Amino acid sequence: MNLVTFSADGRQHWGVSVPGGVLSLSDDFPQWKTLRGVIEAGAIDLVLAAGAGRKASHADGRFAYDIPIPDPEKIICVGVNFPDRNAEYRDGQDAPPNMSLFPRFARSLTGHGQPLIRPPESPQLDYEGEIAVVIGTGGRRIPETDALSHIAALTLCNEGTIRDWVRHAKFNVTQGKNWDRSGALGPWLVPFRDPAQIVDVDLVTRVNGEVRQRDRTGRMLFPVARQIAYISTFTTLVAGDIIVTGTPTGAGARFDPPVWLRPGDVIEVEVPGIGILRNGVADE
Amino acid sequence: MNLVTFSADGRQHWGVSVPGGVLSLSDDFPQWKTLRGVIEAGAIDLVLAAGAGRKASHADGRFAYDIPIPDPEKIICVGVNFPDRNAEYRDGQDAPPNMSLFPRFARSLTGHGQPLIRPPESPQLDYEGEIAVVIGTGGRRIPETDALSHIAALTLCNEGTIRDWVRHAKFNVTQGKNWDRSGALGPWLVPFRDPAQIVDVDLVTRVNGEVRQRDRTGRMLFPVARQIAYISTFTTLVAGDIIVTGTPTGAGARFDPPVWLRPGDVIEVEVPGIGILRNGVADE
Repeated sequence: MNLVTFSADGRQHWGVSVPGGVLSLSDDFPQWKTLRGVIEAGAIDLVLAAGAGRKASHADGRFAYDIPIPDPEKIICVGVNFPDRNAEYRDGQDAPPNMSLFPRFARSLTGHGQPLIRPPESPQLDYEGEIAVVIGTGGRRIPETDALSHIAALTLCNEGTIRDWVRHAKFNVTQGKNWDRSGALGPWLVPFRDPAQIVDVDLVTRVNGEVRQRDRTGRMLFPVARQIAYISTFTTLVAGDIIVTGTPTGAGARFDPPVWLRPGDVIEVEVPGIGILRNGVADE
Repeated sequence: MNLVTFSADGRQHWGVSVPGGVLSLSDDFPQWKTLRGVIEAGAIDLVLAAGAGRKASHADGRFAYDIPIPDPEKIICVGVNFPDRNAEYRDGQDAPPNMSLFPRFARSLTGHGQPLIRPPESPQLDYEGEIAVVIGTGGRRIPETDALSHIAALTLCNEGTIRDWVRHAKFNVTQGKNWDRSGALGPWLVPFRDPAQIVDVDLVTRVNGEVRQRDRTGRMLFPVARQIAYISTFTTLVAGDIIVTGTPTGAGARFDPPVWLRPGDVIEVEVPGIGILRNGVADE
């Protein structure tokens, strides 16, 4: 059973996934407005127990997935984190000694099953499949050896990018990474129980069924534990913070000529044990 | 009269500045938990009227300034925005066609009168004096000609930076710009009434009384109206969003050898009509 945030009946709910649909628990626990509150309270197991054995309140097709945590304090993405990704930039620079980091605003991400939005300003909408970790117990200067114990849950991210806007300015990819609903997060939060869920798992991105990105997380240049340790050196991580952990080679920008996403395309990001994040594409 | 957020009696208040101190209005308007709520409701004038003629609830010295909006959806900073700033980077690149943008998390900023925090990981704490605008009426793809009407209020920012961490990685200044309480915002929000408050005003930064940065906002490469138009092209701006509009030449990194901030230093950022943001420095 996983944790979900969804919209139905003109409002947003949170709850759990059950066979055939989802079960809203928002009204059972009004003290927690969103799953961020559940995680802050350390109440994931309580919520899962409350949903055990119950039927769907909303059957498949009668609700829309939202991003699992609609109100995180921060979403931090790790760039250039798989072998050959640095070489893809063809800028003559060596691989950097530290990880590249950039924030995304929550409004740049949409839920599972919703279309990624291609804006009229650019045709260069691109995919990047990634695992996202959700912080449970916050902290500052978290030791790498202890870092994975600060994770509450896992989800998937399609870290959708408007490529030409990534290089609009002198530094920083901010504007290319923050178009409203240009990426996706979901479908749900999988409780984190065991490092084996992330330390060396298969991460695949497909476009219209064709594998475009595939690598194992064991090949990350900066593993997740190191990400948590490094990021918490400068900023205090808090419950509900999301770290998007990096994408393998093979985004559309790396083809010659580049291949951009278009309406009609279906993009799937899959990791065994976490799920499949599936999104179409729509013109704004 | 200006809008303030402050801590006293073990809690956070919002209210207005009055002679000799501040007047808490949080309990008069419990529907608005922070000044973001006041701005969302379009209630700045209502709040100012409620404070008119009343005395301080907390005299100077009996309260501590907090950042004026503790819970903004986003804080976006504009980099490399005054003449000669691009040349300061000495990287052989021409001035970019678009503005450089990077987010800061609210926890990277402290209030007026609080010390900037120098972490043990680096001695390279540096200042950058800037004007910050607070969005009132949000929007997407706001026309430049109409952009200034979307501003609710003005404040000042010391966009404090840990210099060596700005260049830690391949792209992005994220980690150098987001050390907890490494910068400051305040002292208050000045209601925005007239473009003359920002379009060509004097912006000065002093360290221990010595002028280190001085320029006029009329010389910005990307004026504030263009910033709002450009940023809102990709992301929806909402009430309470903060845009930090760029710093003149003369940060400590540009001296030869560089001059970093140290405990005992006092940094002042001043703009006529907005005020003086004054902060010391403390070791963590």
